Amino acid sequence: MKISIMTLFPAMFEGFCNTSIIKRAQEKGLVDIECIDMRDFALDRFKHVDDTPYGGGSGMILKCQVVIDCLNSIRTSRSHVVLTAPIGKIFKQAKAHEFKKYEHLIIICGHYEGIDARVYDYVDELISIGDYVLTGGELAAMVMADATIRLLKGSIDEQSSADESFENGLLEYPQYTKPSDYDGKKVPEVLLSGHHKNIEEYRMKMSLKTTWENRPDLLEKIELSPKQQALLAQIKEENK
Amino acid sequence: MKISIMTLFPAMFEGFCNTSIIKRAQEKGLVDIECIDMRDFALDRFKHVDDTPYGGGSGMILKCQVVIDCLNSIRTSRSHVVLTAPIGKIFKQAKAHEFKKYEHLIIICGHYEGIDARVYDYVDELISIGDYVLTGGELAAMVMADATIRLLKGSIDEQSSADESFENGLLEYPQYTKPSDYDGKKVPEVLLSGHHKNIEEYRMKMSLKTTWENRPDLLEKIELSPKQQALLAQIKEENK
Repeated sequence: MKISIMTLFPAMFEGFCNTSIIKRAQEKGLVDIECIDMRDFALDRFKHVDDTPYGGGSGMILKCQVVIDCLNSIRTSRSHVVLTAPIGKIFKQAKAHEFKKYEHLIIICGHYEGIDARVYDYVDELISIGDYVLTGGELAAMVMADATIRLLKGSIDEQSSADESFENGLLEYPQYTKPSDYDGKKVPEVLLSGHHKNIEEYRMKMSLKTTWENRPDLLEKIELSPKQQALLAQIKEENK
Repeated sequence: MKISIMTLFPAMFEGFCNTSIIKRAQEKGLVDIECIDMRDFALDRFKHVDDTPYGGGSGMILKCQVVIDCLNSIRTSRSHVVLTAPIGKIFKQAKAHEFKKYEHLIIICGHYEGIDARVYDYVDELISIGDYVLTGGELAAMVMADATIRLLKGSIDEQSSADESFENGLLEYPQYTKPSDYDGKKVPEVLLSGHHKNIEEYRMKMSLKTTWENRPDLLEKIELSPKQQALLAQIKEENK
């Protein structure tokens, strides 16, 4: 797949593109990331990309013309265009699974002071990564690209992906590695037992417990198996 | 304030630290960001930082010793320590306002395959930036640092901050800049009128309308003024 990122700060993406899994995914040919500097589409010789808001107020607003001319230079009939915006729908894991299916994903980074709202008519969707304000859409673009790229076949070990938080609607169970005793804190004995069935049950229970304690809202959104329901009842009984 | 970021990929932060508002905030002395490579705290000569999980399964788990030795090297009695983790509480704008008050914020970047759960006992809180899986905690750390730094006094124009999405519990109204007609799409006339009171009312109404249409969940969390309640009733009537 190809991911085109439209930004005023292409240099911000260097570290992201050249590290770890994202770097490897590009080297393996799973994804081609290009960052396009919207400033190249400014028309005046001072390369102005923003102007004062109609109706007054502080801050500068990114101009339609700059964004749309840039978009038109790269968009094809197979592009899916996303604008990062605090007013957008909240990005969730299911959206990353949708994004990974597009041949060409274009992400337009919103501007920290605002973007001319007429741009909304030219994009497929507006997405926000959470209920907080960022200095620009660049980090949101990286978050969406990252969550999407790691789902591409061959980018990470698939089993490791299926076990993770949110993939089955639950938070992940706690993990431990050597030593078995660190600073007096011991690894749960069942994990040292070698008894696979018990380990599996322990992990399912801890996954349920973590979700119940930290994010009970997630439990309302999924259908638990009879086994999971029994474990959850047990957890509630034990923590009365 | 000082923000220390503990990571295995310090190079990922270069673009973030050297761009725009975050760069300026450092130059103005508002914030001092340091990135510490946890790998420097590995004890063996191959600098291994992770190991296989107890109980089996795929992926490698970041070791307690590496994280805690690194943390102990920078932590003081005035440090607030956050671990990025999908199982953590969801980061919201109110948390950024809390973070900006700390003299020293330490953010530990979680590892994409997992981190030894015993580390949880050594930190003040676990935070997630959203319900999606990332390749590591680096982007989450940048998001939290970014949202926090832009709230520091002097980092951005304060009026521009107060108007933004989430600051008053609502999404922001649409903004427009020149030209008043772009590709046949016109700026709402009231914004060209110069009538401040009408502009203010229009913006409040559009802010309510955007929130009602895109994020009705946010409306349930705030108390609207009588004026806002009247405008919302009007919006609902108009969109029947």
